[in-house]
Amino acid sequence: MALPLCHRLPLPLLLLLAAGGLRAAERSGGSSSAMEELATEKEAEESHRQDSVSLLTFILLLTLTILTIWLFKHRRVRFLHETGLAMIYGLIVGVILRYGTPSTSGHDKPFSCSQEDRPFTTLLVNVSGKFFEYTLKGEISPGKIHNVEQNDMLRKVTFDPEVFFNILLPPIIFHAGYSLKKRHFFRNLGSILAYAFLGTAVSCFIIGNLMYGVVKLMKLVGQLSGKFYYTDCLLFGAIISATDPVTVLAIFNELHADVDLYALLFGESVLNDAVAIVLSSSIVAYQPTGENTHAFDAAAFFKSVGVFLGIFSGSFMMGAVTGVVTALVTKFTKLHCFPLLETALFFLMSWSTFLLAEACGFTGVVAVLFCGITQAHYTYNNLSVESRSRTKQLFEVLHFLAENFIFSYMGLALFTFQKHIFSPVFIIGAFVAIFLGRAAHIYPLSFLLNLGRRHKISWNFQHMMMFSGLRGAMAFALAIRDTATYSHQMMFSTTLLIVFFTVWIVGGGTTPMLSWLNIRVGVDPDQDPPPTNDSFQVLQADGPDSERRNRTKQESAWLFRLWYSFDHNYLKPILTHSGPPLTTTLPSWCGLVARCLTSPQVYDNQEQLREEDSDFILNDGDLTVTYGDTTITANGSSGPHTATTSLDGRRTKSSSEEALERDLGAADHEVTSRGTRLVFPLEDNA
Amino acid sequence: MALPLCHRLPLPLLLLLAAGGLRAAERSGGSSSAMEELATEKEAEESHRQDSVSLLTFILLLTLTILTIWLFKHRRVRFLHETGLAMIYGLIVGVILRYGTPSTSGHDKPFSCSQEDRPFTTLLVNVSGKFFEYTLKGEISPGKIHNVEQNDMLRKVTFDPEVFFNILLPPIIFHAGYSLKKRHFFRNLGSILAYAFLGTAVSCFIIGNLMYGVVKLMKLVGQLSGKFYYTDCLLFGAIISATDPVTVLAIFNELHADVDLYALLFGESVLNDAVAIVLSSSIVAYQPTGENTHAFDAAAFFKSVGVFLGIFSGSFMMGAVTGVVTALVTKFTKLHCFPLLETALFFLMSWSTFLLAEACGFTGVVAVLFCGITQAHYTYNNLSVESRSRTKQLFEVLHFLAENFIFSYMGLALFTFQKHIFSPVFIIGAFVAIFLGRAAHIYPLSFLLNLGRRHKISWNFQHMMMFSGLRGAMAFALAIRDTATYSHQMMFSTTLLIVFFTVWIVGGGTTPMLSWLNIRVGVDPDQDPPPTNDSFQVLQADGPDSERRNRTKQESAWLFRLWYSFDHNYLKPILTHSGPPLTTTLPSWCGLVARCLTSPQVYDNQEQLREEDSDFILNDGDLTVTYGDTTITANGSSGPHTATTSLDGRRTKSSSEEALERDLGAADHEVTSRGTRLVFPLEDNA
Repeated sequence: MALPLCHRLPLPLLLLLAAGGLRAAERSGGSSSAMEELATEKEAEESHRQDSVSLLTFILLLTLTILTIWLFKHRRVRFLHETGLAMIYGLIVGVILRYGTPSTSGHDKPFSCSQEDRPFTTLLVNVSGKFFEYTLKGEISPGKIHNVEQNDMLRKVTFDPEVFFNILLPPIIFHAGYSLKKRHFFRNLGSILAYAFLGTAVSCFIIGNLMYGVVKLMKLVGQLSGKFYYTDCLLFGAIISATDPVTVLAIFNELHADVDLYALLFGESVLNDAVAIVLSSSIVAYQPTGENTHAFDAAAFFKSVGVFLGIFSGSFMMGAVTGVVTALVTKFTKLHCFPLLETALFFLMSWSTFLLAEACGFTGVVAVLFCGITQAHYTYNNLSVESRSRTKQLFEVLHFLAENFIFSYMGLALFTFQKHIFSPVFIIGAFVAIFLGRAAHIYPLSFLLNLGRRHKISWNFQHMMMFSGLRGAMAFALAIRDTATYSHQMMFSTTLLIVFFTVWIVGGGTTPMLSWLNIRVGVDPDQDPPPTNDSFQVLQADGPDSERRNRTKQESAWLFRLWYSFDHNYLKPILTHSGPPLTTTLPSWCGLVARCLTSPQVYDNQEQLREEDSDFILNDGDLTVTYGDTTITANGSSGPHTATTSLDGRRTKSSSEEALERDLGAADHEVTSRGTRLVFPLEDNA
Repeated sequence: MALPLCHRLPLPLLLLLAAGGLRAAERSGGSSSAMEELATEKEAEESHRQDSVSLLTFILLLTLTILTIWLFKHRRVRFLHETGLAMIYGLIVGVILRYGTPSTSGHDKPFSCSQEDRPFTTLLVNVSGKFFEYTLKGEISPGKIHNVEQNDMLRKVTFDPEVFFNILLPPIIFHAGYSLKKRHFFRNLGSILAYAFLGTAVSCFIIGNLMYGVVKLMKLVGQLSGKFYYTDCLLFGAIISATDPVTVLAIFNELHADVDLYALLFGESVLNDAVAIVLSSSIVAYQPTGENTHAFDAAAFFKSVGVFLGIFSGSFMMGAVTGVVTALVTKFTKLHCFPLLETALFFLMSWSTFLLAEACGFTGVVAVLFCGITQAHYTYNNLSVESRSRTKQLFEVLHFLAENFIFSYMGLALFTFQKHIFSPVFIIGAFVAIFLGRAAHIYPLSFLLNLGRRHKISWNFQHMMMFSGLRGAMAFALAIRDTATYSHQMMFSTTLLIVFFTVWIVGGGTTPMLSWLNIRVGVDPDQDPPPTNDSFQVLQADGPDSERRNRTKQESAWLFRLWYSFDHNYLKPILTHSGPPLTTTLPSWCGLVARCLTSPQVYDNQEQLREEDSDFILNDGDLTVTYGDTTITANGSSGPHTATTSLDGRRTKSSSEEALERDLGAADHEVTSRGTRLVFPLEDNA
């Protein structure tokens, strides 16, 4: 069993603790000579002070960023987003640290002593009778021993890469899940899943293969001075496939651009982060047995696919289960009388998802994403009004700080990172590859999706999605995670440049692009888009393939409808205070259980809660087509049912169709200004 | 220069990162044999997993605590506070970990190799051609080498003591400063300062000396098996003098007990934390030169006193300056249009205080306290309504989590801490000493203070203060900071028991004590206490010493009045949007500066903001006596001024007296129901 290891520190936050701890320990050296003790203490104190200074540097950087952001928002400057700004400030400080500070380094000469077999994790060293404990920090390749003695300040501002994964990414990802605009997300769920899973995989493989070609070329030209395997290229593909259109989405939000496009972009970027993490883990896990390392091996490949599926579904389950448990706890206790307790519980449960997943060997970040979605879908409804805003605001602040920290760190890393390898061929190749990878992902998939979609993804939307393939925090975190080898260092440097370029150029070009592509802005987020030409065509389509299209639509609608009815009839009533009473949806022999699980509020505020809850999954366009002939009979619900409702019996009936009607009614209620939709007549005060 | 050190880890949070980092590094070992690499990776992963589990243990513990607290609050159980509960759960988990888990430990046998002079901070070890980097963890006394190989789980749940100082205490202390009820705090400022500074010093020296007697006795009886110096006793006095009546204050809050008593207790406990930290640092810094270590040395003593004053005032300045800078930034930017930015800035600035103080060698925790007070006094007024609640709620949650974490860790530490030394004589002696120390601090000081106070601190208040001498998080954090020597281990174990006893017994006995002492509850916090018998006597006193009393009162009133007028006329207008326009308070030759610094809102919402701002410093009882004959002429204000106000000229006049009048008027407005106070007539809509 390994002793706890503290690797690659120069992480100010940790050091703040560590140095202090040492100081205390040294102080109490007891029998040792006072002079020696004092010297060590001074040294530790100095180190602690330097750590504080380097962390302070980041905080002042963030402060400066915030003030400038305010100025930009105040003056309505849109060409530079806060993240781009954070990078610029980071760059400036990086330049100062790199060229402005003396590179003297006075730390002790490393001491060598030979040892047998393999390295111990703990070392006890006898120094003139006293014992000192040392822990393993990691291996150093012989050529880089001199690296240990580098500029102290540069080392201090270099964080442990795992900080990004374990501290900074979780709040960002959780917030993404928690702030998901459910209604539009679920309405486009099919397309989002397709883009995120299929699209990311396609993009990863295309980029990986293109880059392998580039690497071959470089080897041919003699530009490659280290090893670069096929798996490395694939890993690069996975790393760089995680899009993060944070700048674009911020502008969309500000300009109230089309909600469906927003949902598609946001949903894709949220989910493809998860896909990219798991994909890169799987590629790392792809270790062919025997001597043919880094070549293709079917067994290892399928093992990797298995790893992918296992990690992804495991992480998904973890997140969902914790979310469900939190929902149950908040539902069945009267915790909402004490918002502080409620918020603390919510925070702890969400955090425990991360730890639980890590403890089980899954990916905490992915678990946290699905936990966020579950919390938003169920738990949020059970929270008190105060806790709702508290939790939202808490995670908003954490997200904001973490994101800007990462981006300013990126700027800094361009100059302070010690092992950059910039290869022009590789960089140009990478830019071409990500462009082609994005194109090969967006256009064909959109074509396929349009076959089944009522609201077509129009050409201008597709171009906008193509354009919005920014890379950000996730790509950086994945790339910096491992920079030990030549290939990984080159990948890291290239990723950094790609992030810079896309955030600055693409981010700055969003507003012109929106107007150039004629994408309408100023849309009420609760309003549905008017039928575009494409969808209007389909509505009236009588062509030869309309039959097939309808079938596709019906099938996908059927799938979502099933989920919707299950969610609405069983999960919502069990996990929240909303939805129909379980006593009416469960078969009668479950009467006792149903009564226990149904909260008394359901009978009262069923109607009131519905409005906040109008996350109907179905593409409403589909509904007008499929509603008449598809009847869902989730167990216990009534049989065929016409599209008109009767005033009596509304309370007792609870078939999913009726719920759908009501949701549609509610949705319709919101968009009466348009009045172009085919809706079911519904009484107002039902 | 020392390489960054990572000491005494077993700190799950850090390890989460550290182990992951190693995993990545090991993975990329490159040329090494695959088998070996895999083994190390497995080991690191296992370690990472265990870290997650141990952190998860704490989170589940906190979750359980929250749920039980809810149940208690729900059922209005008051005999056990949440902190007491957290300790109980911690104890239970501690017992399980201690006796329920196998104590097998499979980690590598420590390796010894001799070295010359003094320990290096970095070690490069050559293992069959590969180099590994090791960092110094700390010294291990030869007798305890076997300790390194102990139960893994127990080690995992043992945190680096500096976590308490650098991560958990700052939010607790900042929240204390930020949530200070300014009005009652400032009204009792003199007494609070006296209790916190004089009282803590008295308590520290009395406890220290009593304990030295106990230690002498133990040596005589042969109960002492290690060294225990006089400075250790004094350090124990400083550690145990930090009171933390969290349970009592919670009950006060719930029952709306007397506000002045609340202010006295709360203010004392907040400030004496700061005093105790700095005091203990000074005692540690007390290192007599030459051979007579641990004996009295005048030079070293005065050096310690100098250290105390230097650290305290430096930390105070740091906190105040950051608070002032934040106030200026929030005043002169329109940041309040973007509450998210504002909250983030507020958070970052407050955190930077901590780092700044640490970087300068001061005490971050103390700086954070004064930063909190400054932020509450100035910055809070500049924040948008949303940011006010955001910042309050953010720090409330952080405070809640940190506090309960510390208390549950305390419960755990009783069983999992490996080096407890329980000495019955020492423990009994300590209980007697803290009782006597508290008595010697409360009663004589109250007597002296009563000589100068209008509102006497009555006997039942004094008894209640005596009773409320609980010890909590701060005493624990100070005690665990250094547990390397025999004496410190004994002090730590004793502190733990004192915290348990006081939190459970004293906390549980608060409600009975309140009713036994006849302290009224159900007081409106904005209402002033009715004149007690004592103060009524003084009001009509014609005795021989009433002259002297009046003088004392006038002097203290004069001091506060000076501060109040300075704060009201210059600081408030410069730092916030409230107060009188600087153009009227500054001499006319500063016209330009005054116009620049005064915010345009001042002219408009001066009246509106005043109400939130009614923190008048003066004991209103004093005012009725001293008002007539004391005239404050802070430069530029008008001369003698009668107690009646004229309707005209209100806008232009801005002498501090007038402001006082207005504040009193506002205060009076709140307490009209009482109608027993001598107040200045004031128009309503002024």
